[in-house]
Amino acid sequence: MTRPPLASGYRLTGISCGIKPGTQRRDLAFIVSARPASAAGVFTQNRICAAPVQVCRERLPARDVRGVVVCAGNANACTGAQGLADARRMTELAAAALGCEPRQMLVASTGVIGRPLPMPAVEAGIAQAAAALADTPAALDDAAHAILTTDTHAKLAGRTLALPTGTIHLTALAKGAAMIGPNLATMLAFILSDAAVTPNDLQAILGRAADRSFNCISVEGHTSTNDTVLLLANGPGEPLAGAALQAFAEAVEEVCIELARAIVDDAEGATHTITLEVSGAADDAEARLIARTIANSPLVKTAIHGADPNWGRVVSAAGYAGVPFAESELSLWLGELPLYLAGVPQPFDPAAASAYLRANRTVHLRLTLQRGTGACRFWTSDLTAEYVRLNADYTT
Amino acid sequence: MTRPPLASGYRLTGISCGIKPGTQRRDLAFIVSARPASAAGVFTQNRICAAPVQVCRERLPARDVRGVVVCAGNANACTGAQGLADARRMTELAAAALGCEPRQMLVASTGVIGRPLPMPAVEAGIAQAAAALADTPAALDDAAHAILTTDTHAKLAGRTLALPTGTIHLTALAKGAAMIGPNLATMLAFILSDAAVTPNDLQAILGRAADRSFNCISVEGHTSTNDTVLLLANGPGEPLAGAALQAFAEAVEEVCIELARAIVDDAEGATHTITLEVSGAADDAEARLIARTIANSPLVKTAIHGADPNWGRVVSAAGYAGVPFAESELSLWLGELPLYLAGVPQPFDPAAASAYLRANRTVHLRLTLQRGTGACRFWTSDLTAEYVRLNADYTT
Repeated sequence: MTRPPLASGYRLTGISCGIKPGTQRRDLAFIVSARPASAAGVFTQNRICAAPVQVCRERLPARDVRGVVVCAGNANACTGAQGLADARRMTELAAAALGCEPRQMLVASTGVIGRPLPMPAVEAGIAQAAAALADTPAALDDAAHAILTTDTHAKLAGRTLALPTGTIHLTALAKGAAMIGPNLATMLAFILSDAAVTPNDLQAILGRAADRSFNCISVEGHTSTNDTVLLLANGPGEPLAGAALQAFAEAVEEVCIELARAIVDDAEGATHTITLEVSGAADDAEARLIARTIANSPLVKTAIHGADPNWGRVVSAAGYAGVPFAESELSLWLGELPLYLAGVPQPFDPAAASAYLRANRTVHLRLTLQRGTGACRFWTSDLTAEYVRLNADYTT
Repeated sequence: MTRPPLASGYRLTGISCGIKPGTQRRDLAFIVSARPASAAGVFTQNRICAAPVQVCRERLPARDVRGVVVCAGNANACTGAQGLADARRMTELAAAALGCEPRQMLVASTGVIGRPLPMPAVEAGIAQAAAALADTPAALDDAAHAILTTDTHAKLAGRTLALPTGTIHLTALAKGAAMIGPNLATMLAFILSDAAVTPNDLQAILGRAADRSFNCISVEGHTSTNDTVLLLANGPGEPLAGAALQAFAEAVEEVCIELARAIVDDAEGATHTITLEVSGAADDAEARLIARTIANSPLVKTAIHGADPNWGRVVSAAGYAGVPFAESELSLWLGELPLYLAGVPQPFDPAAASAYLRANRTVHLRLTLQRGTGACRFWTSDLTAEYVRLNADYTT
């Protein structure tokens, strides 16, 4: 991972204030824009959604957001009225430190569900963070680390675009690790831009980008309560339009895909990233449904982990996705190796297929149907004993 | 497990003929009715369905079935036209050995997907089995063992009913272990009865019983290509009706539930059976959708395995089931312990909750909504490192 340059007009930090118990790890991030920014968000589609998600949903899209405060180690989900009050209080404290209105501040959390936030620690932490804000590479690193939970490393991405109206930057940070299932994933991502974009354009661009990135990844298919992707654009002057807006949208999508893949690559206990390409479906949604069903099959995931070319598990997972295809139109390739063509198993060398799975951290499965032009690219991880170990003892 | 008595008019056996490579384990079962029997079946809902499933679907319901031939170790799924010819050939050989029409013979398979059946071994095996048919307890045991794959033990259930028209018996054998996800599961079950029942009644009774048993279990949620449940009733005389038919239907449902639970109890690598009770849904289907979503969450399953009362995972899984409930109407109990009542987390002793999970092989989760009277009881297993180990290296 190369650290991207920080978009102009932003300061940020990540500090440790005791939300992650028994550790000195950073657990509170604060991101601030010098200027009121357009802001858009996409969120978990879980009926049970965390308090900070509810607060952000109320406030977005907006044209004058000044910052985001994020805590890691506690999800502030399933915490009732107290949790909602705590999330609002976080924005009040952050706004007071900055001298703006609470409604101009956004909030996100990730961590254990169902425990009240340790508010004394959070309050002290926000004050500490406000004093530490900076626009340095170290500050970006600190913020990227402060939003992590069981991730093994920080996830950053960025783009610099030279537009006719001037150069703009995208700087993005994310966390993932587990409870990653569309839509979205237990993931947080914050994309900071110094472009000028209207809130409505920003929302449309983010929705489309998330649909092709964060909504196309899965670790174990468990949709979180806290998924939050925020996109800020604090550029002054005339909002982007036409080709410049299109270039900005493409850069946002690229950054989202880069972060989404980084989340899957760092999935808990994973030893493989599996790229699924499904085409020939009736439409893109149908292709994604098939890809997601394969991605969430523990039998597919353990087979890949074991370097076992047990392709029947892939084909049978496609078969229960709920898409009414005929077996005779289904084909499957592992890497370049055809395993199943138009419903007929192909002779192949299991040792060679197994060697491909052992030699590559990222492996490719390609499925084709003959129903239409719908297609999807989807990323998932394998399932390992280490994932089980990590998740059999997370809260206690 | 107590071995039930064998329903009258049946002979059966299980022999070893080399379908499971590199082992002397029994792998071919043959079940024969002395009289033509009414027969009904329910099957996988996977679009990719094995050749024997296709053959049984063509032939059922029927009024003159004479037997079932079953092979374990090879699923005969994704095997194209050759697989279909092989499945038909199995019924021809079995019928010839018995002196009946091939259409009077049913067939089932379980095992690895995508490999042609070793027909010379199967053909010799059917001849060997036909010579070994018996109505002894040992023969029932042999048949019950011959249909297993990674199951650790045979699964038998039975009922004896004293009806006004005479005493009838149900004798049932099943296999499970993994690739168990509704609807149905990678499971085979054969229920033999000496009652007289019309094929139409038999089909209706079996469909309803499967819906409340085999369609309410999950190991990892992967719907198999081979799921087959067959119900035979070979009783002479007037078909059951009225209260007697109702008693028979209840006994069939009880047997199906007993076998379904036995399958979950013997899930690959499992250390817990989890009973989910969902009530207060708008209808039963909605309750089942919530139960199934919780049952298939690896995060829920690993938490139970780790004796970790991480109830947020249960609540959040309910939240992404696709049922539009409000968080404020959701309550959750672990055993007798209330964890979440009407959207509010309850104080509880994590050590006591963890002790409950450690002390009990079967643990209970109860969820209530306030949408209506829909309810479901669902059984699943926990997810362990042993499950991963077993499934990371199954074919190779």
